[in-house]
Amino acid sequence: MDYCGWRSLRQWVQFKWLLVFSLLLVSALLLQIFKTLKESQEYLRKSDSPPPFALKLLSQEEIRKLFNYNGLWLFPQKQCECEKQPGNYIFQEFYNESELEAVKIRRKAEFEHFQRREGLPHPPPVLAQPNIPFGYPIHGVEVMPLHTILIPGLKFDGTKISLYKVTLKASLGTLNTLADTPDNEVLGRGQKQLSILTPSQNHLNFILKHVTYTSTIYHSGAVDIVSIEFGSSVAKFPVHVNQPTIPKLFDPGPERKLRDLVTIATKTFLRPHKLQILLKSIREYYPDVTVIVADDSEKPEKIDDIYVEHYIMPFGKGWFAGRNLAVSQVSTKYVLWVDDDFLFTETTKIEALVDILEKTELDVVGGSVSGNVFQFKLLMEQGEDGDCIHKRSGHFQALDGFPNCVVTSGVVNFFLAHTESLQKVGFDPRLQRVAHTEFFIDGLGSLRVGSCSNVIVKHQAHNKPSDPDQAALEKAYSVFRTNTQNQFKFKMALHYFKNHLQCYTQR
Amino acid sequence: MDYCGWRSLRQWVQFKWLLVFSLLLVSALLLQIFKTLKESQEYLRKSDSPPPFALKLLSQEEIRKLFNYNGLWLFPQKQCECEKQPGNYIFQEFYNESELEAVKIRRKAEFEHFQRREGLPHPPPVLAQPNIPFGYPIHGVEVMPLHTILIPGLKFDGTKISLYKVTLKASLGTLNTLADTPDNEVLGRGQKQLSILTPSQNHLNFILKHVTYTSTIYHSGAVDIVSIEFGSSVAKFPVHVNQPTIPKLFDPGPERKLRDLVTIATKTFLRPHKLQILLKSIREYYPDVTVIVADDSEKPEKIDDIYVEHYIMPFGKGWFAGRNLAVSQVSTKYVLWVDDDFLFTETTKIEALVDILEKTELDVVGGSVSGNVFQFKLLMEQGEDGDCIHKRSGHFQALDGFPNCVVTSGVVNFFLAHTESLQKVGFDPRLQRVAHTEFFIDGLGSLRVGSCSNVIVKHQAHNKPSDPDQAALEKAYSVFRTNTQNQFKFKMALHYFKNHLQCYTQR
Repeated sequence: MDYCGWRSLRQWVQFKWLLVFSLLLVSALLLQIFKTLKESQEYLRKSDSPPPFALKLLSQEEIRKLFNYNGLWLFPQKQCECEKQPGNYIFQEFYNESELEAVKIRRKAEFEHFQRREGLPHPPPVLAQPNIPFGYPIHGVEVMPLHTILIPGLKFDGTKISLYKVTLKASLGTLNTLADTPDNEVLGRGQKQLSILTPSQNHLNFILKHVTYTSTIYHSGAVDIVSIEFGSSVAKFPVHVNQPTIPKLFDPGPERKLRDLVTIATKTFLRPHKLQILLKSIREYYPDVTVIVADDSEKPEKIDDIYVEHYIMPFGKGWFAGRNLAVSQVSTKYVLWVDDDFLFTETTKIEALVDILEKTELDVVGGSVSGNVFQFKLLMEQGEDGDCIHKRSGHFQALDGFPNCVVTSGVVNFFLAHTESLQKVGFDPRLQRVAHTEFFIDGLGSLRVGSCSNVIVKHQAHNKPSDPDQAALEKAYSVFRTNTQNQFKFKMALHYFKNHLQCYTQR
Repeated sequence: MDYCGWRSLRQWVQFKWLLVFSLLLVSALLLQIFKTLKESQEYLRKSDSPPPFALKLLSQEEIRKLFNYNGLWLFPQKQCECEKQPGNYIFQEFYNESELEAVKIRRKAEFEHFQRREGLPHPPPVLAQPNIPFGYPIHGVEVMPLHTILIPGLKFDGTKISLYKVTLKASLGTLNTLADTPDNEVLGRGQKQLSILTPSQNHLNFILKHVTYTSTIYHSGAVDIVSIEFGSSVAKFPVHVNQPTIPKLFDPGPERKLRDLVTIATKTFLRPHKLQILLKSIREYYPDVTVIVADDSEKPEKIDDIYVEHYIMPFGKGWFAGRNLAVSQVSTKYVLWVDDDFLFTETTKIEALVDILEKTELDVVGGSVSGNVFQFKLLMEQGEDGDCIHKRSGHFQALDGFPNCVVTSGVVNFFLAHTESLQKVGFDPRLQRVAHTEFFIDGLGSLRVGSCSNVIVKHQAHNKPSDPDQAALEKAYSVFRTNTQNQFKFKMALHYFKNHLQCYTQR
């Protein structure tokens, strides 16, 4: 090598070291890349995974083995089905063929009105895209109609640039910010579109932190999808316009007397002697609890009890009409339903049922009638032309904190309930004779039901009375009480139209 | 300069050009930086904005000028207030001082039970953080209890690395995926925690696209917050466990006869002669529409009309008890409420009211009583110790498509309503004598109310009847009808406890 003097020599030496250093750096990088590749290769080798393009789903068979409950496959399907077997019903079959087409048209129209009022079907879910430089609320922001709220969680954390332009848009309300800003930094205050234009990300985030939403239309139940944009990044979030349901609380009074907490309700028809026996047994344990009696007998008999309220209905108006009437007159927090042929004993502890409803979120808790709890579950599958409903005996799960109790869908006709909840569901006056499950079907989605085996009422014996008048009444009663073919057909057709159901299975 | 031979010369030339090139590059960069700074400076100068550290909110004064409606400032506050002036009421003042403390304790306990059952207060909103590399649903995913759904929108778009580890967690349900994967690529199938371990982002996204959620506890109304994690990035989204309310549809029948669509309901007390006049006027225009009469007179008089259903109540049981009873017996889609001293005329077109409810999402539509529509709005402010309720005459907005109609909160006692909606709210049997607004307060959050001025019913004249029996009855009636001081006090105290209200203002 030529050394061309002191200057050249130093340059050369420096250059040589620079070269050596660069080579070392490059070698280190290459080594790291090689290591990573080797790791991945080893992992791939270990797992024996297929080449990256084989994306397949589990087979239909394997999927059918998952997601089962009580023998029902509870997974989204277009259509639901009911197995054809005795005891299972396809509801449209209970209409005369000549009228069925017209019925289908009317049912469709009524269902559309119902859906419109309920805001159904719900719009598709709002999806967030990845890597959006915004923070925002995804769930849970509520505003009362015509009120204003602060939107929580709005922030921007994106690329640092010289000028930030962020736009917010709403449809059912207007936007503003509590930040005090120069005129042209925030445009559209109090409008449906709010634009922020600022060079400072600090300013931007301060403005966003204090954004307000004002509901402008009195429409409870509406959902406004508000958007926030920056360049091509858009995030959307829901604002629920909702007038909360006003509470309807009941004062239990300073001594929490049972008569201020519970009203007993019953319906009677052509069995005044049985009713008298029931009342006498109630009074043995509960001398002053109000009893409401709905009576559609032909010749209602006077009831001599100052704590009984007696309501006279048109003759034979009906079973569920009477139930609905009795419950409509209750002014205590809880109502205890009993049939007019029950018999209270020392195991009929209303206080125990009160305790369960006071401590849980249940709406209804059933007891036991002579050892029979009659618990059943109702499972629903949705379908295009109506839902499929499946009744299965038993319960869903234990009731936390109450070892004798479970959570279910339906119980016996001996239950304590929140008066409010019962009134909300109601007993359909069209069900005139035999009916029971229908109430719990109507309660689907509204009632949380429990059942306890340790609070027991007895059934009066079914002996034929010696008194000839009473015997005559009981004979008349049993005629009304028979579940005739016509009544059965009526109830099946009612499920088709009223509840928009397709079919029913039971086990 | 020394040129030390050919080699040194070439090196020198190359070095010189390298130097020149570097200098040019650096100059260009410096120029760009300078330009940007200048732009920002110009912008800052233009807007006269304060230095970047001055972040301030609008003054309290300026904020109070915003967000007003009908003179009420509808913005979140800890406490609400009612102006002290005649006609405005603070409800706790209607309790005796000696009992008030105990009442407050009981009211608090009942309110807590109510909140527990309603899932209130709602948990704070779920906030999404910026720049999370996930796509996910932010709102609108629902599953029926014990059912399974596919979670829409799950995807990953983050840094490319050799091995992706993504974990999903649920609390009220279990997770799985329909993707068919090798054993160790997905762990925890059917558990509350699902772990995905894969080197391929394609595989990861395929697995995520087919993630399923299975509800495992029968608890309608619960919200499960599901999380998805990758390293330190966590996204959360809600899954609503909900049993939809089953429909309760009414068949209008093949001819849409009014008697299959509407039932007229009324309550009568000591005014059988007025009731007869009403019924006669109804029959002039509607010969076969069912009329339900709830009667708590001392000696109820027989009604000779095959389409009237007459219900006898305990004497003087009360106004709202009777209203609740009558409505409990309706089995048509709509119920028309009338007072027993109204008079139908040719302007009393029930069909017009039916048309409005059929075509809108309203629950109730009021008409006009001799020109009086009595429309009023109810606005609510929330407060820690109870809400403040403000009654203002008038309406919120016009009703789209119906020029004679508006949206409001309360109307006259002449209205058509969805039977279901009326039964859900109910008429409180504790309101025995004078009451009207109470029903609409109870309906807050449940009823959507409209009012139309073009469907008119008349009021029977208030002349004293010539018949001495009738005159005697009317005299007795007017005694019951007087809003006594005690009744007024009772109603105010009832608002305090039952509706958890603090106070009331009116204008």
